[in-house]
Amino acid sequence: MEEQKRAEGVPLPPAARVGGVVADIDTPSLILDLDAFEENLRTMQVLAERNGVALRPHAKAHKCPEIALRQIALGAQGICCQKVSEAVPFVAAGVRDIHISNEVVGAAKLALLARLARQARVSVCVDHAQALHALSGAMGVQSASIAVLVEIDVGQKRCGVQTPDEALALARLAQQLPNVEFVGLQAYHGGLQHKRSLDQRKKSCDKTLQVIRAFLSAFEQAAIPCPIVTGGGTGSAAFDVGSKVFTEIQAGSYPFMDGDYASNDWGHALSFKHSLFLLGTVMSTPTAERAIVDMGLKSTSAESGLPQPADASSGWSCLAINDEHTILQAANAKSRPALGAQVRLIPGHCDPTFNLHDSIVVVRGQQVEAVWPISARGLSR
Amino acid sequence: MEEQKRAEGVPLPPAARVGGVVADIDTPSLILDLDAFEENLRTMQVLAERNGVALRPHAKAHKCPEIALRQIALGAQGICCQKVSEAVPFVAAGVRDIHISNEVVGAAKLALLARLARQARVSVCVDHAQALHALSGAMGVQSASIAVLVEIDVGQKRCGVQTPDEALALARLAQQLPNVEFVGLQAYHGGLQHKRSLDQRKKSCDKTLQVIRAFLSAFEQAAIPCPIVTGGGTGSAAFDVGSKVFTEIQAGSYPFMDGDYASNDWGHALSFKHSLFLLGTVMSTPTAERAIVDMGLKSTSAESGLPQPADASSGWSCLAINDEHTILQAANAKSRPALGAQVRLIPGHCDPTFNLHDSIVVVRGQQVEAVWPISARGLSR
Repeated sequence: MEEQKRAEGVPLPPAARVGGVVADIDTPSLILDLDAFEENLRTMQVLAERNGVALRPHAKAHKCPEIALRQIALGAQGICCQKVSEAVPFVAAGVRDIHISNEVVGAAKLALLARLARQARVSVCVDHAQALHALSGAMGVQSASIAVLVEIDVGQKRCGVQTPDEALALARLAQQLPNVEFVGLQAYHGGLQHKRSLDQRKKSCDKTLQVIRAFLSAFEQAAIPCPIVTGGGTGSAAFDVGSKVFTEIQAGSYPFMDGDYASNDWGHALSFKHSLFLLGTVMSTPTAERAIVDMGLKSTSAESGLPQPADASSGWSCLAINDEHTILQAANAKSRPALGAQVRLIPGHCDPTFNLHDSIVVVRGQQVEAVWPISARGLSR
Repeated sequence: MEEQKRAEGVPLPPAARVGGVVADIDTPSLILDLDAFEENLRTMQVLAERNGVALRPHAKAHKCPEIALRQIALGAQGICCQKVSEAVPFVAAGVRDIHISNEVVGAAKLALLARLARQARVSVCVDHAQALHALSGAMGVQSASIAVLVEIDVGQKRCGVQTPDEALALARLAQQLPNVEFVGLQAYHGGLQHKRSLDQRKKSCDKTLQVIRAFLSAFEQAAIPCPIVTGGGTGSAAFDVGSKVFTEIQAGSYPFMDGDYASNDWGHALSFKHSLFLLGTVMSTPTAERAIVDMGLKSTSAESGLPQPADASSGWSCLAINDEHTILQAANAKSRPALGAQVRLIPGHCDPTFNLHDSIVVVRGQQVEAVWPISARGLSR
């Protein structure tokens, strides 16, 4: 175990023992409930297949090869990674189809990307001619080849070209340059995923689709084939799959259903279950209504909301979070969890929470079935 | 290197080469400017010594044994850790005086604490009789002994006993139980550290000191010696050291001066320099005024504010941060950093930022002098 290696003076025992029970897991720990997780995987895969769209789950959400392999085994096309270094442990684990859903700039990153492209089918985004020249050059040095998608800005105001003309120019450049192959467009709008009402999300999604259609029509007029249109996410998946625009969707959070996504109104469109939890222990009960849990911002993200009790009828809620503490407020002395009690919380946002943990404890009911390494944790280059 | 081990299919090159230059560091990377860092270390050490108070820097801020060893070499009494597992790499690196400035609850943690207490002088906080009994028992099993400080709540409303009577009862219990030795009080108030005006901080600090004095007076009346009073922080250090109450201060952030602490008014009380930076690369320039940096919430905390440009005259600022992107807004096309440009940012909060990185690149001017492992990164149990 990695943690054992780091502790030379005194060995660090692992947080959980396979075959053990949840009550014996040391805290704070990240927990995956297998029943809910597997159901979520099936729900999204079925949705994609029923609509004839490929599912390419985003591995930036979990950074865990064991999870990616299960997504692929169930029918996913491959995975997305957001960073080149993030893709490394997935390639090592045998994933052979990876889309880097991001621009890659810098010699060290391009050299690594070329090495990966020699071991797997790899695609990447571009939004600038200079970056595309550098990409082609770096691939050439290692005799690698890579598929290229032009990223278009569909309202997120982040990366991506602004106009169809820019996109066409990049596609034509890719057709001219060696070792790169233009294969389509990426259109992603993160913000709309988290609009709360189903109706708002649908409206935003429709707006995005209009933008994409304008780009596609320019490509059609220019007679440049655009076989792949990739994008979409968990919050818009119900609309993305029937859009006739996206050929594949990049949903990342659906296996986990974090607190932020749970705040969305899902209507009858889709239904996901909470499978991702934080396990903490009450380490202090200084007043009748206050309990302090041994877990804070170093174990969970809170930028999308505080963690919340997994059991909504618990009689307590999270009042505040510090670096290593979460402060619980109980309705009364009776509902305050006792000193030493284990508590289960739902993290606000899955992606940065996974990125804080070296491994995830995989449980079915009260049994520990496995401990999976989060091998791409911290790999942000 | 740890990262190389994780990448079996394709090796992950290190982010920086000792002897190289800053311009060649791969991004995102965490950077320590040695000149500013060393000056900050001296400033706080001199302040403590001039006032006859011990300095026990908080290692939760940096989680880096190389930094702790430099603090101790300069005269620090030892270090604080916030978690038991966090202390493990520091003991392995030779640190022999560690205060766990937190309550420890749970059998696995107590067993680990006992093992550490056999290798180093270790103290820990208690605020509950049940926890003190468990601590004494766990130490006994391994024939270890540990120093105990009763934590008192001085207004933070987190852990700690509420009244002098509770504190006295715990101290007396510690005197009766085997393998534990009562040595004093911990009084920490995190919130007051970040009050912006020097005057506000002084007033809050005075209020805290009044509370502590009431506890100390109860101990004096009960004829229970209280040789250690530990607490304080970077924001209140100028007042803490002259309080005649604290025998040691637990400042953690002073070597780094993050964005949050830089927003404090320091008056003439103390002066620290920014030594901690995030290095990113511009990966997209989709519009004349917008630039996107290859670094986001997986490389920096933002709960205490967005990262800000290290060079205040840069002509751009941070508009937003996502998981893997930071969006820069430039005053005009001329001041927008170019595609591929390296940018240097000051993180909002040092502690959770260190906790995102496996190592820190140590530079003097433009030269890379070392890469230090952040060995306690992720050790939150």
